[in-house]
Amino acid sequence: MNPPITVVGIVFPDFELLDLFGPYELFGMLKEQVQILTAAEAPGIVRSSQGPKIVADVGLNAVAAADVMLVPGGQGTRPGVNDEVLLKSIAGLAARSRIVAGVCTGSALLAKAGILDGRRATSNKRAFEWVTTQSQRVSWVRRARWVEDGSYFTSSGVSAGMDMTLAVIQHLFDQATAERVATGAEYTWHRDAEVDPFSDLNERPANG
Amino acid sequence: MNPPITVVGIVFPDFELLDLFGPYELFGMLKEQVQILTAAEAPGIVRSSQGPKIVADVGLNAVAAADVMLVPGGQGTRPGVNDEVLLKSIAGLAARSRIVAGVCTGSALLAKAGILDGRRATSNKRAFEWVTTQSQRVSWVRRARWVEDGSYFTSSGVSAGMDMTLAVIQHLFDQATAERVATGAEYTWHRDAEVDPFSDLNERPANG
Repeated sequence: MNPPITVVGIVFPDFELLDLFGPYELFGMLKEQVQILTAAEAPGIVRSSQGPKIVADVGLNAVAAADVMLVPGGQGTRPGVNDEVLLKSIAGLAARSRIVAGVCTGSALLAKAGILDGRRATSNKRAFEWVTTQSQRVSWVRRARWVEDGSYFTSSGVSAGMDMTLAVIQHLFDQATAERVATGAEYTWHRDAEVDPFSDLNERPANG
Repeated sequence: MNPPITVVGIVFPDFELLDLFGPYELFGMLKEQVQILTAAEAPGIVRSSQGPKIVADVGLNAVAAADVMLVPGGQGTRPGVNDEVLLKSIAGLAARSRIVAGVCTGSALLAKAGILDGRRATSNKRAFEWVTTQSQRVSWVRRARWVEDGSYFTSSGVSAGMDMTLAVIQHLFDQATAERVATGAEYTWHRDAEVDPFSDLNERPANG
């Protein structure tokens, strides 16, 4: 039997709940094949943007390697882009990961850390101006549910992270596995990465 | 200003992540108006079915009252329906709550605790036979994304809890608020409770 795929979700104060737990739920449907770990600057309790608290299993620098590094968005990305220690740890783990995935304003952290240099990427359209100012070395795609560029995946806001995750699962396994996971979660997969019904609806400044 | 709406999510070992955090994300979009608390038999760290751990803020019996009591499903509902202490605590809090909401196999706990007696309710179609044997006093509805019977809301599997939550938000506030929340989360709301595309797809025994 193959060793499990390791998914490492990165949390920080005021991360967005569904950006993390939507993907976790879908990866978790492949329980036999996937191991999920939550990492933060230090192990312990971390408060989400919505209030509920979760537990980081491990410190970021203690993660030897990951198949998927997953970075959520949330209000905490605003101070996050100025947190040199966090950015350095994220860049370090990205270099030890097969796939890098960012949800919503998680793209801002990836961009600021230099991980998306020369890559195509997207983010939440409500926070798009702020996110895109984090790096001019990224080819930002405004209209996309998610963007896949090699082993770099980024998505639009919140629920779009689940569509992106199904694309990551398809990349790691195959389309049938991704479809099975979506059906198991009773989730209607927005299969077309370029169809982004919320990009116009959310085309205004607001919280990201 | 009105006091905030209190949403109390109930956790137990091996609860299903998205059953809880999908609704939390949507309620959390109304940050100024909603307060989210997580309750368990005792406060402290609780492990989800998918592995990640979260923190229960408070013991169930210490919650004075709730506007919304939210019960997720997951593998932990299998031992849960035989946990008399848990069922009694859930029934007690239900009696102190304005709205009772169950996601996926969370309906099994509500049914076994007698909370759904005389009510219409649904659950995950993958676990439907098991769930419905928990109580013959419930009018079980097989084909429904979610069921609303007065102040009792129950949903089909996992993601369906998000559609149900938007219906709860509509019930507590109004339709415009529910639509705004869905758009903010970039979530395509399945607005019609009776359209249940997964009831046939999931019509087979499997994990709930």
